[in-house]
Amino acid sequence: MTISMDAWSCPLRLRDHPNIVLGHGGGGKLSSELIEHLFLPTFDSDELSELADAAVLAPAEGRLAVSTDSFVVHPLRFPGGDIGELAVNGTVNDLAMRGAVPAHLTAGFILEEGLALEELAGIATSMAAAAKRAGVVIVSADTKVVERGHGDGVYINTTGIGYVPTGVDIHPRRAQPGDAVVLSGTIGDHGMAIMSVRESLGFEADIASDTAPLNGLVADLLAAEIDVHVLRDPTRGGVAAAVNEIAGTAGVGIALDEQAIPIRPVVKAACELLGMDPLHVANEGKLVAIVSSDAAETTVDILRRSTAGRDAAVVGEVVSSHPGMVIARTPFGTSRVVDTMVGEQLPRIC
Amino acid sequence: MTISMDAWSCPLRLRDHPNIVLGHGGGGKLSSELIEHLFLPTFDSDELSELADAAVLAPAEGRLAVSTDSFVVHPLRFPGGDIGELAVNGTVNDLAMRGAVPAHLTAGFILEEGLALEELAGIATSMAAAAKRAGVVIVSADTKVVERGHGDGVYINTTGIGYVPTGVDIHPRRAQPGDAVVLSGTIGDHGMAIMSVRESLGFEADIASDTAPLNGLVADLLAAEIDVHVLRDPTRGGVAAAVNEIAGTAGVGIALDEQAIPIRPVVKAACELLGMDPLHVANEGKLVAIVSSDAAETTVDILRRSTAGRDAAVVGEVVSSHPGMVIARTPFGTSRVVDTMVGEQLPRIC
Repeated sequence: MTISMDAWSCPLRLRDHPNIVLGHGGGGKLSSELIEHLFLPTFDSDELSELADAAVLAPAEGRLAVSTDSFVVHPLRFPGGDIGELAVNGTVNDLAMRGAVPAHLTAGFILEEGLALEELAGIATSMAAAAKRAGVVIVSADTKVVERGHGDGVYINTTGIGYVPTGVDIHPRRAQPGDAVVLSGTIGDHGMAIMSVRESLGFEADIASDTAPLNGLVADLLAAEIDVHVLRDPTRGGVAAAVNEIAGTAGVGIALDEQAIPIRPVVKAACELLGMDPLHVANEGKLVAIVSSDAAETTVDILRRSTAGRDAAVVGEVVSSHPGMVIARTPFGTSRVVDTMVGEQLPRIC
Repeated sequence: MTISMDAWSCPLRLRDHPNIVLGHGGGGKLSSELIEHLFLPTFDSDELSELADAAVLAPAEGRLAVSTDSFVVHPLRFPGGDIGELAVNGTVNDLAMRGAVPAHLTAGFILEEGLALEELAGIATSMAAAAKRAGVVIVSADTKVVERGHGDGVYINTTGIGYVPTGVDIHPRRAQPGDAVVLSGTIGDHGMAIMSVRESLGFEADIASDTAPLNGLVADLLAAEIDVHVLRDPTRGGVAAAVNEIAGTAGVGIALDEQAIPIRPVVKAACELLGMDPLHVANEGKLVAIVSSDAAETTVDILRRSTAGRDAAVVGEVVSSHPGMVIARTPFGTSRVVDTMVGEQLPRIC
């Protein structure tokens, strides 16, 4: 989107330097102009256009699913996406992981004084495109501005509301021994894409974030009447954190087969260079599905029909031994404990 | 709340210096500990305790209302409240301004590296108390951490979900000539409370923020079958911005009577000292109600029964002349245009 500032009534000084000033968060005319000339035409939402304190929506169609997430990724743009696309997909995916059909999204912006309006418009355009792709409508938004040096361009909170169809019960506690662990595609792409640009590794051209909405894949599984026990998107903390949480919640063990886990060679090489375990690296367009073993192959087949799931594979099983623990069989035939990291491997990955 | 760190498994270095580190936002064990030992016991929410990607709630009871707001107030604590209480009340009030009964809240935290855990625990405790008071449950939460110098202690996004009772239709477009403009109490308290501590005006002991939930007042009006046309909470931009928005949306004029507008003498004095128009100063526990003129006195009576509305008064009327404009009669018998500010009077007031 290219923004025309001809219609803006803000003082000439601001027109000449089209950047965020504190007044854009003040609730006065500058705030209104930002909303009217930038967010409204970009987001194209009847609910937002109401400009009321809260959006009022139609009665809900079943159990509500709600999830909130803030995004502070650095840099704002990275190979494969930007903070706007990530903020929409991230919350859409959290809803989808409970089997919910994502419907509404809110967007809260914390802008740093000095941010270029063109940059903000680009991010908003990405959000609008991602929302359209995932089938959600942005119904409420808010903008605050902080002084230069108290932010980092833009932080975005998105909160999503979805509806859980009757009969759907997807929850980590439903993992049971004998179940298969399915992964929808390659791991580590998002984390290594961020890392490659931040550290100038020379892999920049070859690694792109996998940011993508996963609600389509989930809808396909449910439409095929697969009894999905658990879904989890392995974002911060990677696949290791996701499966450890499942093992802990359900009181089961999880056995992974390292050789079965899809990973791009360039991502693997980058992880080796940096001494990182790809199981700990963030993904933004992948899901872990736990289904009964007899549904495993059908699950993989259905996932592979979509671009987002084209590299899907069975990567392990739920076991009754070592409850609460995740063990991986290595390519060398040995076993190792896959633990959750203590702290932070890659700060501000999402 | 006093937090005991005995059960935390984080490295000794962190126990000795109980402050936020980047790892608290990493999705690993430090993140889990922050949630498990600080947020869960404080917020006491079944939905949060599930630790799932999204909360799943019971089917909704009518039309949904949704509102999002981020809070970046500086300082984090001020006379009369703190950022936590403000973040809960602010979003509860946005829902109430559509006549919705607030039900669920999400909380997204952006923490700055170095923030004292005790400070965060205090803010979370305030949020929990405010949520209880307003009758809402925190159902989803998220924490991100940014490096020192890229935040300001803590920024909070809250998103609220409420239900609009059948037959309730409260919206700025419903203001019509002949209606009365009712204000629920004194103006300028919040903005001047923040200003007094920030600028060390010497008024610190005498001015407190009015932060309060307004859903009780709204419920009282609806229970008495008052046909409330418009509600608006005059936060950023003050009463001036709120009534100008109503005038613009409904295409009507609004005539205020300055002498009828309640204001504490100490707030008035502070505004005069700083050269500020109290109509432009933020409130966080007041509402503007527009009702038909024959319901005006009953509305005031009902509001006055509650502490939050004890200074309620009729402060003006909706007129057909000067559509889109707000005119105030001054104590000197003259008239003046009350416009919306262009930019920012008091940065980071909420």
